[in-house]
Amino acid sequence: MPKSFMSMDGNTATAHVAYAFTEVACIYPITPSSPMAESIDAWATQGRKNIFNSKVKVVEMQAEGGAAGAVHGALQGGALASTFTASQGLLLMIPNLYKWAGELLPGVLHVSARSLAGRSLSIFGDHQDIYACRQTGVCMIASHSVQEAMDLAGVAHLSAIKGSLPFIHFFDGFRTSHEIQKVEVMDYDYLKSLVDWDAVAHFKAKALNPHNNPVARGGAENDDIYFPAREAQNRYYEAIPDIVAGYMEEISKHTGRQYAPFTYYGSPTAENIIIAMGSVTETIKETIDTLNAQGKNVGLIKVHLYRPFSAKYLKKVLPATVRKIAVLDRTIEAGAREPLYLDVVGALKDCKDLQIIGGRYGLSSRNTAPNQIKAVYDELEKDVMKDPFTIGINDDVYHLSLDLDPDFQNKHDYTSCLFFGLGSDGTVSANKSSIKIIGDNTEQYAQAYFQYDSKKAGGVTRSHLRFGPTPIRSTYYIEDADFISCSLDEYCYKYDMVRQLKKGGTFLLNTTYKPEELEEKLPSTMLAELAQKNAKFYIIDATEIAKEIGMGRRTNTILQSAFFALNEQIMPYETSLKLMKEMAKKSYMKKGEEIVELNYKAIDMGKNGLVEIPVKPEWAELPMKSFMTESGDEYFDVHVQAINKLTSYDLPVSNFLKNGLEDGSLQPNVSFREKRTIAAQVPTWDPDKCIQCNFCAFVCPHAVIRPVLLTDEEIAAAPMEFKTAKAIGKGVENLKFRIQVSPANCTGCGLCVHECPGKAGQKALSLADIKTKIDQEPLADYLFKEVEPKKDIFSKTTVKGSQFLKPYFEVSGACPGCGETPYTKLASQFFGKDI
Amino acid sequence: MPKSFMSMDGNTATAHVAYAFTEVACIYPITPSSPMAESIDAWATQGRKNIFNSKVKVVEMQAEGGAAGAVHGALQGGALASTFTASQGLLLMIPNLYKWAGELLPGVLHVSARSLAGRSLSIFGDHQDIYACRQTGVCMIASHSVQEAMDLAGVAHLSAIKGSLPFIHFFDGFRTSHEIQKVEVMDYDYLKSLVDWDAVAHFKAKALNPHNNPVARGGAENDDIYFPAREAQNRYYEAIPDIVAGYMEEISKHTGRQYAPFTYYGSPTAENIIIAMGSVTETIKETIDTLNAQGKNVGLIKVHLYRPFSAKYLKKVLPATVRKIAVLDRTIEAGAREPLYLDVVGALKDCKDLQIIGGRYGLSSRNTAPNQIKAVYDELEKDVMKDPFTIGINDDVYHLSLDLDPDFQNKHDYTSCLFFGLGSDGTVSANKSSIKIIGDNTEQYAQAYFQYDSKKAGGVTRSHLRFGPTPIRSTYYIEDADFISCSLDEYCYKYDMVRQLKKGGTFLLNTTYKPEELEEKLPSTMLAELAQKNAKFYIIDATEIAKEIGMGRRTNTILQSAFFALNEQIMPYETSLKLMKEMAKKSYMKKGEEIVELNYKAIDMGKNGLVEIPVKPEWAELPMKSFMTESGDEYFDVHVQAINKLTSYDLPVSNFLKNGLEDGSLQPNVSFREKRTIAAQVPTWDPDKCIQCNFCAFVCPHAVIRPVLLTDEEIAAAPMEFKTAKAIGKGVENLKFRIQVSPANCTGCGLCVHECPGKAGQKALSLADIKTKIDQEPLADYLFKEVEPKKDIFSKTTVKGSQFLKPYFEVSGACPGCGETPYTKLASQFFGKDI
Repeated sequence: MPKSFMSMDGNTATAHVAYAFTEVACIYPITPSSPMAESIDAWATQGRKNIFNSKVKVVEMQAEGGAAGAVHGALQGGALASTFTASQGLLLMIPNLYKWAGELLPGVLHVSARSLAGRSLSIFGDHQDIYACRQTGVCMIASHSVQEAMDLAGVAHLSAIKGSLPFIHFFDGFRTSHEIQKVEVMDYDYLKSLVDWDAVAHFKAKALNPHNNPVARGGAENDDIYFPAREAQNRYYEAIPDIVAGYMEEISKHTGRQYAPFTYYGSPTAENIIIAMGSVTETIKETIDTLNAQGKNVGLIKVHLYRPFSAKYLKKVLPATVRKIAVLDRTIEAGAREPLYLDVVGALKDCKDLQIIGGRYGLSSRNTAPNQIKAVYDELEKDVMKDPFTIGINDDVYHLSLDLDPDFQNKHDYTSCLFFGLGSDGTVSANKSSIKIIGDNTEQYAQAYFQYDSKKAGGVTRSHLRFGPTPIRSTYYIEDADFISCSLDEYCYKYDMVRQLKKGGTFLLNTTYKPEELEEKLPSTMLAELAQKNAKFYIIDATEIAKEIGMGRRTNTILQSAFFALNEQIMPYETSLKLMKEMAKKSYMKKGEEIVELNYKAIDMGKNGLVEIPVKPEWAELPMKSFMTESGDEYFDVHVQAINKLTSYDLPVSNFLKNGLEDGSLQPNVSFREKRTIAAQVPTWDPDKCIQCNFCAFVCPHAVIRPVLLTDEEIAAAPMEFKTAKAIGKGVENLKFRIQVSPANCTGCGLCVHECPGKAGQKALSLADIKTKIDQEPLADYLFKEVEPKKDIFSKTTVKGSQFLKPYFEVSGACPGCGETPYTKLASQFFGKDI
Repeated sequence: MPKSFMSMDGNTATAHVAYAFTEVACIYPITPSSPMAESIDAWATQGRKNIFNSKVKVVEMQAEGGAAGAVHGALQGGALASTFTASQGLLLMIPNLYKWAGELLPGVLHVSARSLAGRSLSIFGDHQDIYACRQTGVCMIASHSVQEAMDLAGVAHLSAIKGSLPFIHFFDGFRTSHEIQKVEVMDYDYLKSLVDWDAVAHFKAKALNPHNNPVARGGAENDDIYFPAREAQNRYYEAIPDIVAGYMEEISKHTGRQYAPFTYYGSPTAENIIIAMGSVTETIKETIDTLNAQGKNVGLIKVHLYRPFSAKYLKKVLPATVRKIAVLDRTIEAGAREPLYLDVVGALKDCKDLQIIGGRYGLSSRNTAPNQIKAVYDELEKDVMKDPFTIGINDDVYHLSLDLDPDFQNKHDYTSCLFFGLGSDGTVSANKSSIKIIGDNTEQYAQAYFQYDSKKAGGVTRSHLRFGPTPIRSTYYIEDADFISCSLDEYCYKYDMVRQLKKGGTFLLNTTYKPEELEEKLPSTMLAELAQKNAKFYIIDATEIAKEIGMGRRTNTILQSAFFALNEQIMPYETSLKLMKEMAKKSYMKKGEEIVELNYKAIDMGKNGLVEIPVKPEWAELPMKSFMTESGDEYFDVHVQAINKLTSYDLPVSNFLKNGLEDGSLQPNVSFREKRTIAAQVPTWDPDKCIQCNFCAFVCPHAVIRPVLLTDEEIAAAPMEFKTAKAIGKGVENLKFRIQVSPANCTGCGLCVHECPGKAGQKALSLADIKTKIDQEPLADYLFKEVEPKKDIFSKTTVKGSQFLKPYFEVSGACPGCGETPYTKLASQFFGKDI
C-alpha cells in the first residue's frame, strides 16, 4: 500500500481513526476537544462510511455527563460508541466511566488533555483531567504527537473491542490537538483488518434486548458479593497489556514507527533517564540526541499504556545500567506526590539500587523547552537531588525549580518562522494554508502551532511554523526564529518581538508608515535589536494594497505571499505562487470568479509590495527601553501589564503571593489602564440628537461609554474644551450632560450605535476613524477618573455633578427624549418585563 | 469540666460537631450520609445555636453538584459552609472541590465513605469515593470510630479555618456512620475556645462584596501564569500537617485519647506492621492485643491525616525495628496499585531495607474479622509474600486471598447479642432503645450495628449488640453470640441462625408454635445445632401476647423486655423494667396515657411470656440438612438462593465468572422461584365480580398476579380444582378466564385490590389471610409455568389457552366489563394519553 501523507492536527488525526470504529458518537463540545466531535459530525453529514460500512450516528447531548451516559446506553444497546472531551467535561463523565468499566463495555473516550479550574480556569493543556480518571478502571493510552494520535487512536478502539474494557485515548490539549503536522494517514481497510470480529460479535450478542437477551444489568449488591464480584474482573485487566502490546507491535510493523506499552529512547547504557508521557517526550528525544552527541549518556522511557500500569512492560525496556530516574508529571496534586511518579516508584520498588525523583512541568500549556530537559538530566547527575522539583518556572519561594542554561538549544535542521497576528485578522488561517501547501506539495516535514490568547476580541496570536527535511519533534515555542512576521505595527510598541529572532534572521512588518518614517516612528529598542542581530528588515503596506485592489481590510493573503517570497529556501517563489493560487481557487470558487481573481491579485502583490529597509549598524547603540509604561499602580505594572506585554512568562512564583493573587483574586479597575487601542473605529457623540436615554452606556460590553453630569466648574477644570448638552430631568436642571467614550479602551464593536434611538430616529452616535478620536483620551481620563472606583454605581446617590447618571430604570417618569414612553418600558427591552 | 457520655452513631457524632462550626449547610441526601444533614436540619429548626451564636442556615439543593456549588458560593460570600455526602454524590462534587481548594476556601465536607457503582451499585461502605477525590487538593482527615468522628470532625473545621483550605472528614459508611457507640460528647464552649478567630476574621474580610471588597475571582489564565500561580499555593499545603497535628495534640490532651496525623499502636519493637485507615483499625488494635499477648511482636500505623500525606509525620511514628509493612486499602483500582499503598511506598522509598506489600479488604462493607488481620501478619512472616493480596473473600481464580484460621478469635470481655428481624418489624428500633438504656444508664460501654438488606419490603435485619466494661473495638459481625433472638419463626427454615451462637449461648424464638409442637415443626438442623452447642432455648408467642393486650402486630416491645429478662448480666431485670418504662413514657406520652399504659403492659409481659424449652442431648444426632432447596436451575441454586439464605458470603470469586455475572448481568425469571412468603394477607379472586380488565395484573409491582386463558384440557390437567369464568372478548369465546395470584411471592401490598373496578364497583379482589391461601401455590406454579419465560409478553401472539391475555391496550373494542368504555381510554389512566 503506498503511504499517504497529509497535514493535519491531532484532533483531526484522532477523529479520522475514531470515525472508523464508531457507530454512535455522543458528543458535547469543550475546548480543545471540540474539533474532534465537529469532524465526526461533518463527516457523518457528508455520508462517510466507517469500517462497519455505516455512517456514524451523532447525538449531541446537553452536557458531558449526558454524553457519557448516552455512550453507556449505546454500548449496553450493542453499538460501539465513542465520545470526545477534556477538562471539566471529563470530570462530569467520571461517574459513568466507572459504569463503562464495571460493565466491561468497549467504549472509547478521546481526550485532548487540559487543565482543570481551581484557583483559576484555563483552557490550556496538561494532564490534570486524565489523572482525575486514573482510578475509574478505564484503560488509558497516551499519544505524544500528531502522528502517534493517528497511529494509537486505533489501538484504543481495537483493544477495547478485543479486551472488552473501555479506553481513554489522550494527547496534549493544544500542543497535540491543535498542532499541525505532516502525518502518515491510517487506511480504513487496514484498520478493518485488525478488528477481532469474534469479539465484535460477542459484544453485539451481549447487548441488552428484551427479545434475544433478556437480562438486567446495573443491579444493587450487598456486602456479601460485591467484593468477590469485583475481584472476578481482574482477568480483563490482566489481559490488556498483552492485547495492547500486540496491537502496538502490529502497528509498528505496518508503520515502521516503534510502539509498545513503554518504549525506550536514548543510550542503551544510560545511567540517568526520564520517564514521561505526552508531547514533552518529543522534546526530550530531541534533547537526548543533542546531549548524547555531546557525550552524555542519557535516555527516556515513554509511557504509552498508562492504565493498566504494567510493571512487567516497564521493566522490559528499563536498561540494566540505569541508576537514577526522573519522572515528569504534567500536573500538580497538592498534598500528595504526583501520580505517574507514584506509579513508577510502586512498580520499581524492588529495584533497591534505583533512585527515583519526580518533577512537575508544563502546567496549562506552559512551554517546556530543551534547556528545561537538560536541567533535569543535570539534576540527576547531582549527589543531592531536588525532589520534588519543577521546571519551566522561576520558583523564588520554595526553590523547587531547576536552574536553566539560557544558551542551551537543541540541534535541528528546520526553518522556523514566527508570526504575530491580531485575533481573527486572518494570520492563523493564512498560516494553516501555508503549512498545507508546504506539507502536501513538498518532501518537507512541516509543523505549525498556534498560540492563542483567551482574550476574545483583538488578542494577540502567535503562529509557530517549522519546515524541514526530517520529522519535527520540537514541541516548544520558537525562541530563535529564522523569520518573524508582524501583521500590526502597533505591536512594535507593545511587544519585544525581535527578542525571538535569531542572528541574521528576517523581520517583516506590515505597516502604513513610509520607509523614511521608520527610524523616527519605531521604538529605539526594536531598531537596536535589529542591528544587534544583524537582521534583514522588510516592510509591506498590505493594508493599503488590500484597499487598492479592492479587498477591503483583508491583508492575510498578501502577507502570506510575502512570507513565501522571503523564504525561498522552502520552495521557489514561482512554485509557491502557483500553489497559493490553486488553493485560492479551491477555497473561493464557490464565491465566484471575481473573488478568485481578487485573491490572485493579492497573491501577486505579496512580493511586489515588499520594501527592504537597510538596518543601520549604528542602531545597535540606541537606548533599550522597557515596553512597559509605569502607571504607579504596582499590581497593574508588575502583574497586569506583564501579561499584556507578553513578559508574564518571567513572573516568579512570589508574584502570586501578592495582591490577593494567591486565591485567584483579581483587582478591579485596571482595564481602564490597559488601553489596548484595538478599535479601528470608535463612536462619536452628537449632543443635538441625544435623548439622554443612556442605552449606549448600558449596552457597551466593555463599559467604555459613560454618561456624566457636570457642573460648570468641572467643565472649566477639564483638560480641553468639549461639547455638552443641557441635562434633562428633575433635579439636574443646572447641570450639563455628556456621553463620553474612552477611545483607547473601545473595541469598536458598534453595539452602541446600533442601539441608539436618538431624536426622531436620528442616531446620536456614529462611528469614526480612531485616529481622529484618540485625542479625546485626555478628556476620557478626566471624566472617568472623577468617579470613585469602588463606589457602587447602582446605589441611590443624590444626583450631582461628575457622577454617573443613576441607572435610568431607577428613575420614574417619562423618557426625556420623546416625553411619552416611560423609562421602565424602554428598560424592559434589555432587562425583561419585570422591571 | 465533667465528661458527658451519650449513645449515638457516627453520623450524629459528626453532625453534632459540624453544626457547631457551620453557618450555612448546603445539602442533598444520599445513603449513608443523609442522617447527618437531617440532624443539622432538625437542630436548625429547633433553634440550636452554633458556636457563632447563630442558627445554621440549611439549603437543600437539587443534587450533590448543586450542593457543592452552593457551598462554594457561600464560602466566597464569607459564610463558613459545610455539606455531607457519599459515593455517587461525592463524585458529582469533584469539580467544585477543585474550586474550593484552588480558591483557598475553608469548606468542610463530611463523608460517610461508600462504594461506587461500577459492575453493580452498592449502598455499603468502602473508600472508593474518597479516593476518587485524592487529587483535588482538598485535605482529608479519617476517623476510625464513632468516638473519633466526634473527636476529629472538629479538627477538620478548625484546621480548615486556620489553614485556609477545604477539608473532607470521612469515616466508614454504615460501620461508623450507623454504628451506635457510647461516646464522650464534645462541648461547644470547648470547641469555640479552639477557633483561630483571627483566621475567621481574615476569611470574613476576604468575602466577595462589591462594596467592601470589590475583587473578582475565578478568572481565566493562560500558559504564562497558571503554573507559577499554582505553585505559589504550596505553602498552604506545607502548613497543614503541623496545623492538624497541633489541633490533634490539643484534642488528645483534652480527651485523653491520642491523636496525630499518624498514630502507632502495638509493640514498640515490632518488625511487622500494618498501615491502614478507617474502622478496620479498631479490629486491628484488638487483634494486636490478642496476638502480642500470644507472643507476637506486631503493630499498626493508623492514618488520620490522609491529605496532605505527610512523610515526615509517618516516619515519626514508624518504629526503627520495622522490616515489613502491609498496607490495607479499602478499595480496588483496576489496572493500578491501590492509593494508600502507593502513598506509603512513595513516602518510604528511601527506606531501602523495608519490604512493603499491599492488600485489599472490606469492599462494600465486607466484614473484616480478626482472623483476616491475623492472616495479614502471618503473611508478613513469610519469605515470599503475596503482593497484592486480598482478605475476607475466597479467591479461587487469581489466588490473591490469604488463607484464614477459622478458629482464631480475639479476646474480649463483652456480651454479644444478635437479633434477626424482619425489615420494619420494629426489631431495630427496639435494639436502638435497648442500647440507649444500657449506654446512658450504666457504666457499661455499648455498641450496636445494624446489618440491613437492600431489599425494601421484608428484607432481613440483623442487629449486632455488644455490651461490656471497656470500650468496644470489634468493628466486625458477631459470629459467636452469647444471645440470639429471632422475631419470625419462618427464619428457622431459611437461615442457619444457630451457627452464629456460641457454645452454651441462649436462643430466643418468637413463634406461634406451642412448646410441644417444636420438636416436630422446627428443622432438624436447628435442633441438632442447639444440642451440639449445649444452648439454652426459649420461646415466646409475642404475636399472641400483643394481640391479647391490644397492641395489634407490634411485638417489638415484648421481645425487648424478653431480651432484658434473659440477660441479667447486663443489669438486674428490675432496673431494666424501670428504664424501659421511663423510655416508653418519654416516647409515647404525646400519643396519650392509654398508649403508654399499653407499652407498660407489653414490657411486663416480656418476662412472663417466656417459656424455656429443654434442649434434648439426643437432638445432636439429628440429620443436618441444607437450608437450600434444589430447583435444578444452577444460577438460582448456587447464586440467587445463596443470597436469599445468607450463605452468599461463602461464594468464591469463580462464581462471578459464570452466568454472565462478570459484567453485572442478572438472569431474569428467578424471583418466581424465590417464594419469600412475606405477605400477611394475599388477594383472592371472585370470578362473579370480575370484568376481566386485568388492572390488577398491571398494577402489581411484583408481577405476582397474572390473567390466564385456559382450554378445558388444561383445566383438567391442573393439579387441583379451581374456579374460572367464561372468557369475554372476540376470539376467546371457547376459553376460560382466571386471575391467578402467587401467594408465596406476593408482598401483600394491596394495590390490586385498590385498583380493581369490578362489576358495578364491587371489587373482584379482596385480601385474605395468607395461611388460608397458601394452598393455591401448586396451582400458581402450574399456571405460571405454562408461560415461556423468555417470550416477550408484549408481542402480538395469537390468543390461545395457557397464555397471558394480550395487554389490553393492544386489543381494540369496548371494555368487556361495562361494554362501553374503550380499552384505550382505560389504559390511559395508567400509561398517559398517547396510547
